[in-house]
Amino acid sequence: MKRRTFVMNAVTALPAFAMLGVPSLSSQQSPRLDPIILPSPEKDGGKSVLASLLERKTIREISSDRLPLQTLSNLLWAAFGVNRPEMGTMGKPGRTAASASNSQEIDLYVALPQGVYLYEAVPHRLSPVMAGDFRARSGWRSALTAPVNIFYVVDLTRYVVGKGQPDPHIGDPEVQKSYYYVATGLIAANVFLFAASQGLAAWFHNCDRESTAKELILRPEQRVLFAQTVGYPKS
Amino acid sequence: MKRRTFVMNAVTALPAFAMLGVPSLSSQQSPRLDPIILPSPEKDGGKSVLASLLERKTIREISSDRLPLQTLSNLLWAAFGVNRPEMGTMGKPGRTAASASNSQEIDLYVALPQGVYLYEAVPHRLSPVMAGDFRARSGWRSALTAPVNIFYVVDLTRYVVGKGQPDPHIGDPEVQKSYYYVATGLIAANVFLFAASQGLAAWFHNCDRESTAKELILRPEQRVLFAQTVGYPKS
Repeated sequence: MKRRTFVMNAVTALPAFAMLGVPSLSSQQSPRLDPIILPSPEKDGGKSVLASLLERKTIREISSDRLPLQTLSNLLWAAFGVNRPEMGTMGKPGRTAASASNSQEIDLYVALPQGVYLYEAVPHRLSPVMAGDFRARSGWRSALTAPVNIFYVVDLTRYVVGKGQPDPHIGDPEVQKSYYYVATGLIAANVFLFAASQGLAAWFHNCDRESTAKELILRPEQRVLFAQTVGYPKS
Repeated sequence: MKRRTFVMNAVTALPAFAMLGVPSLSSQQSPRLDPIILPSPEKDGGKSVLASLLERKTIREISSDRLPLQTLSNLLWAAFGVNRPEMGTMGKPGRTAASASNSQEIDLYVALPQGVYLYEAVPHRLSPVMAGDFRARSGWRSALTAPVNIFYVVDLTRYVVGKGQPDPHIGDPEVQKSYYYVATGLIAANVFLFAASQGLAAWFHNCDRESTAKELILRPEQRVLFAQTVGYPKS
């Protein structure tokens, strides 16, 4: 398995976190997380778009029950999966959510009870980022115990300036801001509608951006924007 | 009919636009637009959410064929209609797309060939804003002739600071920026998925923000953000 650089960093940097007074992480006992191979996503089933829009709402009371692996797979594919093999603008495959010049600048960091994973859409896989329970960084109340918390993280290096770039303004930080927040909303709505179509609960909210960026050892060009909590509605 | 202030402004201000060299508007011959009473939106039918996500993509080649009134009604309801009668946060009814503290800060200004209308979700109606063909302000290429162009316009006065507001940061202009762009994306994804579920084409893009704000005589607290073109795919 090809491990990502920041996974390695994660392990070596853990003692520093402990000194900074970060709550104890299970990763210190067990710093290794294996990748999660997701089953192929289902491409049909559940309610129609219109019927799901009728059900669409924020549900903050979310059970701690885990989602089946197939549901997690469907959820992440719905959010921002690859939905067609053709290469589009800037030589990247099409995704379920649009982005400016197909920059695909948003990464989904997925906090499960045992650790945080990066959703890699091309192999459709969850790659380990950091062991430990980071759900408290995502939100409050039911986010602490819900089975899935998605951090929306922009990578500014995805805005390619120059060769092949059709957008002359894409290097402007204010323009980038408009693009990456819209891109976040486009993905988050997919999550809301998928959840509504399956009877799941979803809640989009602010999160602890600074702690998350530090603890996940994100690069300076990455920014934590928002989070979304998903699970079964509490009955 | 209760007319909105800016409709009156529109009529009195038209000669000034003509002097500013704005392309001739049919509104100068016929400054009156009637409201469009939309039929009740259909709440089911079309593809499932997952099947629609499989079809989701940007389609820029859009026919000039008009959409049936029922389809226009369904489209606008899907985008940001009222989907439940209960009053939520800040005493507003629930909508198909979330917004921070339920601020509902995004207005949809809908450019049809004959004029621009404001989508009013509560009566589910298109209220006249300005007669004339403004589709060229929304975009380029097929946007000029497509049957529907939606302008996403934020109204900053919707961010209520103080009494009843659960978000202590909602008065911060940078925070507002993050909220209104995400809110735009949430609505735009509803449009993309509705379009995919019905075999329609949708394209989200930049637009001529300054001209649109001037020509539609928006208030200083309103900002034109983006536009989205919808119609039948060109065969």
